[in-house]
Amino acid sequence: MGIKKTIIASLLVLGFSVPGEDDLVIRKIFDAALNEGHAYENLRDLCKNVGNRLTGSHGDTLAVLWSEKKLKEIGCENVLLQPFTTNHWVRGYGDYGKIVLENEEKAIQLLSLGSSVGTGDKGIRAKVIEIDSWDDLKSRGKKVEGKIVFYNRPMNPKNVNTFESYGQSVDQRSKGASEAAKYGAVAALVRSMTLANDHNAHTGNMNYEDGVKRIPGLAISTADADFLHEKLQSEKSLEIELYSYCKNLGTVETNNVMGEIRGSTFPDEIIVVGAHLDSWDVGEGAHDDGAGVVHAMEVLNLFRQIGYKPRHTIRCVLFMNEENGVGGGVTYARVAEEKGEKHIAAVESDAGGFTPRGFHVDGLDGKAQKAYSRLSSWSPLFTPYNLHYFKQSYAGTDIGPLKKNGTALFGLIPDSQRYFDYHHTMVDVFEAVNKRELELGCGSMASLVYLIDKYGIE
Amino acid sequence: MGIKKTIIASLLVLGFSVPGEDDLVIRKIFDAALNEGHAYENLRDLCKNVGNRLTGSHGDTLAVLWSEKKLKEIGCENVLLQPFTTNHWVRGYGDYGKIVLENEEKAIQLLSLGSSVGTGDKGIRAKVIEIDSWDDLKSRGKKVEGKIVFYNRPMNPKNVNTFESYGQSVDQRSKGASEAAKYGAVAALVRSMTLANDHNAHTGNMNYEDGVKRIPGLAISTADADFLHEKLQSEKSLEIELYSYCKNLGTVETNNVMGEIRGSTFPDEIIVVGAHLDSWDVGEGAHDDGAGVVHAMEVLNLFRQIGYKPRHTIRCVLFMNEENGVGGGVTYARVAEEKGEKHIAAVESDAGGFTPRGFHVDGLDGKAQKAYSRLSSWSPLFTPYNLHYFKQSYAGTDIGPLKKNGTALFGLIPDSQRYFDYHHTMVDVFEAVNKRELELGCGSMASLVYLIDKYGIE
Repeated sequence: MGIKKTIIASLLVLGFSVPGEDDLVIRKIFDAALNEGHAYENLRDLCKNVGNRLTGSHGDTLAVLWSEKKLKEIGCENVLLQPFTTNHWVRGYGDYGKIVLENEEKAIQLLSLGSSVGTGDKGIRAKVIEIDSWDDLKSRGKKVEGKIVFYNRPMNPKNVNTFESYGQSVDQRSKGASEAAKYGAVAALVRSMTLANDHNAHTGNMNYEDGVKRIPGLAISTADADFLHEKLQSEKSLEIELYSYCKNLGTVETNNVMGEIRGSTFPDEIIVVGAHLDSWDVGEGAHDDGAGVVHAMEVLNLFRQIGYKPRHTIRCVLFMNEENGVGGGVTYARVAEEKGEKHIAAVESDAGGFTPRGFHVDGLDGKAQKAYSRLSSWSPLFTPYNLHYFKQSYAGTDIGPLKKNGTALFGLIPDSQRYFDYHHTMVDVFEAVNKRELELGCGSMASLVYLIDKYGIE
Repeated sequence: MGIKKTIIASLLVLGFSVPGEDDLVIRKIFDAALNEGHAYENLRDLCKNVGNRLTGSHGDTLAVLWSEKKLKEIGCENVLLQPFTTNHWVRGYGDYGKIVLENEEKAIQLLSLGSSVGTGDKGIRAKVIEIDSWDDLKSRGKKVEGKIVFYNRPMNPKNVNTFESYGQSVDQRSKGASEAAKYGAVAALVRSMTLANDHNAHTGNMNYEDGVKRIPGLAISTADADFLHEKLQSEKSLEIELYSYCKNLGTVETNNVMGEIRGSTFPDEIIVVGAHLDSWDVGEGAHDDGAGVVHAMEVLNLFRQIGYKPRHTIRCVLFMNEENGVGGGVTYARVAEEKGEKHIAAVESDAGGFTPRGFHVDGLDGKAQKAYSRLSSWSPLFTPYNLHYFKQSYAGTDIGPLKKNGTALFGLIPDSQRYFDYHHTMVDVFEAVNKRELELGCGSMASLVYLIDKYGIE
């Protein structure tokens, strides 16, 4: 044993740990992200100069051009658009609603749900039935006919992970209109998917069941939902008047955008870093999913900045149409399979630009377990950055379709407490994102991709 | 082995864990905090109806009365005020400053530092020397005479824990004026202690060295500090004009406020939960330290709500004068020693109302190590609440003086990324605090106190 090794061994015995190469690379990645990162200014640019970007909108076109330009600026090779055709829905202008009480009228904050039909100029005016469960709806039966069904089951505040609460309540939004229509309802009004008590309506997608009459579905703010609930206790016969102008316009062509750093050793083996480029058509899509877009771009940028040359091809994929169709994710996985491309891993960020806490991992046929073991073995490398939470679980909507191609899937887990304060609202704007929290997400994504690139996942 | 035990053993073999009594109590604590907690509305009340509350101000008096009333409402016994005398400093109105350039003047955002003398009506107008280290100051020597010294060493963005960066830079604020005065400077202008680039001046306390001339010390916003730095590159002879009206008014009497739940088994053994009631005289002291105040109160409230009867006496102590004197913390520890009170532990929250990450632990003569081991053994109980970070380190300013009494000290660690966006500014207001993040802090504090109460710390 040489002197150097003796010293290292002695230090280890004494409880000192000597930083290894990985510690140093990851430190460089975080230093660059926190000190000279581009993510925050990229996000400002996307939010303020592109704005919101629902599939098929003018913002969609701008966002695709913006991404193409940015990926070229980073120095990516093979920057290209991947076209596909998907449903085209537009909100129209002037969604409006009010509660008509015996002695007063009260305007309410609402937003049509994505994919909903509108009421048109004639509007809808009807009595209201408040429903707190599917059994409740069923038991009302014929009483629902001609009424507006008001789904008011709140998100559960007791879950520490707010996405669990979302998952337990979002069925009201996704299938509420069709379920109500089966009993003859004329519209569905859904309590906004948020744990906050405020005046923002939270939109989001809904689905119509084939063969069931299509009635309008709208989200109502939690403050107005609470007001309505209270008024219904004393005035059961109050009415609501609704106007909405959204339309399904058939189909539209849009694009995923991608660019890559070619691998030095395994150029035909791909690691995807991705997020979704589209957003809802209110606010600026800052946390959902502008943050993810700049996270994913920044992975490539940070590798350039610290001079890291990946062995596998690192491909940044910005998926369009996550919000109302997932056409981007499905198209990407289909084309990858047709081309016989080998995707060893995909890493997605679609849970906001908050302080990162860890990663989800997913995959088929034991792939998730292997990837989880590998991830856990890297845990000491993540500890200095307060990344401590690793879980086998759903990793992301856009990369989901790659699962059947045998790809190991990873999802960034940011702190979830504030996510549903902004989600799908007009207040999901650049100013809601903290610079350092965003940058720590970039460092986390890039460090994970570095480790996957270096060690693989099995 | 009975059937019940067999089932439990089988579940364990299968990898299920059966929640124990502690899991269930802690789940109850968090459920109550997240679903029916009082912390958020208490914080609103403190911020909006008391407002800021610097020692000796009208807000100080209001805050003491408010706390006394709140602790009685919770049902505390022995609610009492603990008076002490400390320094009395007031800002006065109309702090103002501008950069006088060759062809223009630019007003700058500034705030006098706590304990500073003012310039008075005559103001100060002088040339500026920018300093980036103490060696730099020393090497300027006589050139400093008659000048305003501009300390512009930024907080280091590369530390993940922002308090580390604060600790590495705050010497400019605390001793900058006296160090500059030794070389004949007429005032010290200190870059605000924040990682954000914005227009808020961040105040905070400074100290004068005995026997050195007292010159004014003021904080300048980071945006203006960057502007000034840039202008100094081309116009070295630019001048700054400063007006400030702060004064040291001698001494004033103020109070700590406390209340307790008496222990059922060991009423003479005390666990303190504390925070500081005073704040700076700008903004509303929401994160610093209104959040801590309502965290500490809520521990007692949550115990009442879930029907937990502690074995030791749990005493909520709201310390006055943390910001500019620590008279409250020193007085409390002195009186405790005089009375021969036994304090087994003290838990403080003074790092904001952000998502909690873990706890610091501190103590004398091996006490810290023992408390740390105990805390680590509870780690699995904290995991469901994403509390993962336990560290032997400084635990809090107000409880610090209890260390010599042999008390084990614990400090809540919230996520630190946004803390210095608000710290000591006019934007540290109620609206900057997220309800759920605050409530998770309450659950964390109460769970820790529950475990200390049940198991002790050795």
